[in-house]
Amino acid sequence: MSALQINPSVRDTEAVPDPVFAAHRGGKMEIAATIPLENRDDLSIAYTPGVARVCTAIAEEPALFDEYTWASRTIAVVTDGTAVLGLGNIGPKAAMPVMEGKAVLFKQFGGVDAVPICLDTTDPEEIVETVARLAPSFGGINLEDISAPRCFAVEAMLAERLDIPVFHDDQHGTAVVATAAMENAARLTGRALGDLRAVVSGAGAAGVAVTKMLLAAGVGDIAVADSKGIIHVGRDNLTPVKGELAAITNKAGITGSLEDALKGADVFIGLSAGQVPEEAVATMAPDCFIFAMANPDPEVHPDVAHKYAAVVATGRSDYPNQINNVLAFPGIFRGALDVRATAITEGMKLAAADALAAVVSDELRADHIIPSPFDPRVAPAVASAVAAAARADGVARL
Amino acid sequence: MSALQINPSVRDTEAVPDPVFAAHRGGKMEIAATIPLENRDDLSIAYTPGVARVCTAIAEEPALFDEYTWASRTIAVVTDGTAVLGLGNIGPKAAMPVMEGKAVLFKQFGGVDAVPICLDTTDPEEIVETVARLAPSFGGINLEDISAPRCFAVEAMLAERLDIPVFHDDQHGTAVVATAAMENAARLTGRALGDLRAVVSGAGAAGVAVTKMLLAAGVGDIAVADSKGIIHVGRDNLTPVKGELAAITNKAGITGSLEDALKGADVFIGLSAGQVPEEAVATMAPDCFIFAMANPDPEVHPDVAHKYAAVVATGRSDYPNQINNVLAFPGIFRGALDVRATAITEGMKLAAADALAAVVSDELRADHIIPSPFDPRVAPAVASAVAAAARADGVARL
Repeated sequence: MSALQINPSVRDTEAVPDPVFAAHRGGKMEIAATIPLENRDDLSIAYTPGVARVCTAIAEEPALFDEYTWASRTIAVVTDGTAVLGLGNIGPKAAMPVMEGKAVLFKQFGGVDAVPICLDTTDPEEIVETVARLAPSFGGINLEDISAPRCFAVEAMLAERLDIPVFHDDQHGTAVVATAAMENAARLTGRALGDLRAVVSGAGAAGVAVTKMLLAAGVGDIAVADSKGIIHVGRDNLTPVKGELAAITNKAGITGSLEDALKGADVFIGLSAGQVPEEAVATMAPDCFIFAMANPDPEVHPDVAHKYAAVVATGRSDYPNQINNVLAFPGIFRGALDVRATAITEGMKLAAADALAAVVSDELRADHIIPSPFDPRVAPAVASAVAAAARADGVARL
Repeated sequence: MSALQINPSVRDTEAVPDPVFAAHRGGKMEIAATIPLENRDDLSIAYTPGVARVCTAIAEEPALFDEYTWASRTIAVVTDGTAVLGLGNIGPKAAMPVMEGKAVLFKQFGGVDAVPICLDTTDPEEIVETVARLAPSFGGINLEDISAPRCFAVEAMLAERLDIPVFHDDQHGTAVVATAAMENAARLTGRALGDLRAVVSGAGAAGVAVTKMLLAAGVGDIAVADSKGIIHVGRDNLTPVKGELAAITNKAGITGSLEDALKGADVFIGLSAGQVPEEAVATMAPDCFIFAMANPDPEVHPDVAHKYAAVVATGRSDYPNQINNVLAFPGIFRGALDVRATAITEGMKLAAADALAAVVSDELRADHIIPSPFDPRVAPAVASAVAAAARADGVARL
């Protein structure tokens, strides 16, 4: 036992049984056989000599790979451990509990088998090379908790190189759910998306993706603020990704701070860890929407937000309208795998958002613009819409 | 359905239900959660916000990784698809049914969670780089069906680089079981290993490893024959691996063909696909051992072998004394993982062979020198011996 030096704080935690550590002990997942292995006949079917016939059939007819292996229904959940939850760059091993959690959510909510792969490299080219080399083993790649801006290049390079779906959930899962929430908030309050001027706080993975998707969904104008203030075409030293954002956002040409952008804004979307003072919230337009998604501390506390906003959402499970990626990623991959999609298109993501919004369209209330993660209608509705969009976009192989 | 062009022969097979293809349809394994995910509380424990505490604990105290993730009890079964069963280089995708089969055998017989990883590269350096980068996700690496001589370099480089067990089963699994069989055959017939002169046919992955291990176990002398005849120090153009074999084998200095080597030999070990004529078998020493392990056609048919040999073993499940790797690999990894071994040592492999032999030491008969793969004593006995040897060799972390 000598090598396992448990630090005192953790040991204390364990002395008093802690339900979180107890649940994670030994990991949260396992492999299970789906065939019997009880006797010699079972073995000769599952393994040699029987398996040789299946291998030969696939070698002769590669399309049979999808039918006779688990790969076409299995994805890799890949991280380099650089942007884990709000914890930052904690490395691949410390990221594993999140990746296992993600994997079991994939299974529970989407029936998707998922394998956590935590990589011992943070170099984008090496990540791409590594994932490309192990890609024959999987039907899709879910990138997770890779820090911006490297995540954008990694996803783009992999999507270009592979013929299976590649999806960075921190970007697009968040974007799909936020877009669904926005669609329903607009519907509930009788607004057209094109009339809304939104402010996004944060230009990391989620901020960039949410902004692009809301624009694609039809939101009128969006100003994005990072730690240096509002992104606009005249700002110096923008990264390539922020330069691209500057070109497509902020038609109003606002400059200055986040607070400047909030004046008269219809929507606030918080995807940073910062706090927004109540005085700034008070300057927003009447009946505004506030989606304060930082965890565990929303950028605007819901009690404050409700003073000014018609609709309030957070990232927390203990308040109504939780913007939770689990509403998106299981159904998106379920749908993509079901039709053996070769990519995740913009159309598939928008279809996922629309389908997610539609689940509660007959039950809309200000505290119910998106369904609960446990609503059993969610994943099937998202999967079905994503599969149909894949076919429409010509990326379905089934 | 357009992309799935199923060839007529396979479609015919499916029209008449075929138990092998039926068993493999959809793959043979799945991921299962080991924790409940039924409600919001479950989610907040398994995933955010609860999981953040576990990640933080591991980041602060890396040894906790072993306790709070599935990685320390999970291995990767890695292939490049170049030497799959007797089918040769059929590529990574056609190899997947074998890797899945291997994974479910690991689980069934050793309680070891195993993930098949089929690589889209056959370059040894790239294989090593790729496996090293994904190694943080696993507690061990089982290399599988990688062709010789690349397999030797890949294993050696990975073992050097990683601090988790690396084990090429085609080499060492076969060697462990063959050594156990040899030990019991000698015991049964009252021979000392040191008095035996053996002939190994085949200098591929298994031939090389079996030869080295039998020498380590004490067999007196071994002549190895490849397709060009007996390997000896005077032969031209030996590969580095065969040069090494030449230096440690064939003390008798035999030259010529396999048939030449068999004259007066006490043991024949077949690890090639070739056939040995009965006339050559007839020249072996009285009461010899014949282990003809080629599948599906043993180098010497058992009916022929029994005319001349005291003990006969094959690789087939429908004859007695099946030299089946499943007798070794589940217990070896179970034992290695149980003590968090940082390597698989020669001592651990020899301990595995001794333990496997000992399982049937009180029940020895000529047709029962090794246990059945379904003997429930096998994996625990092997695991326990391997764990003890890991401790003795100083590679155990627990």
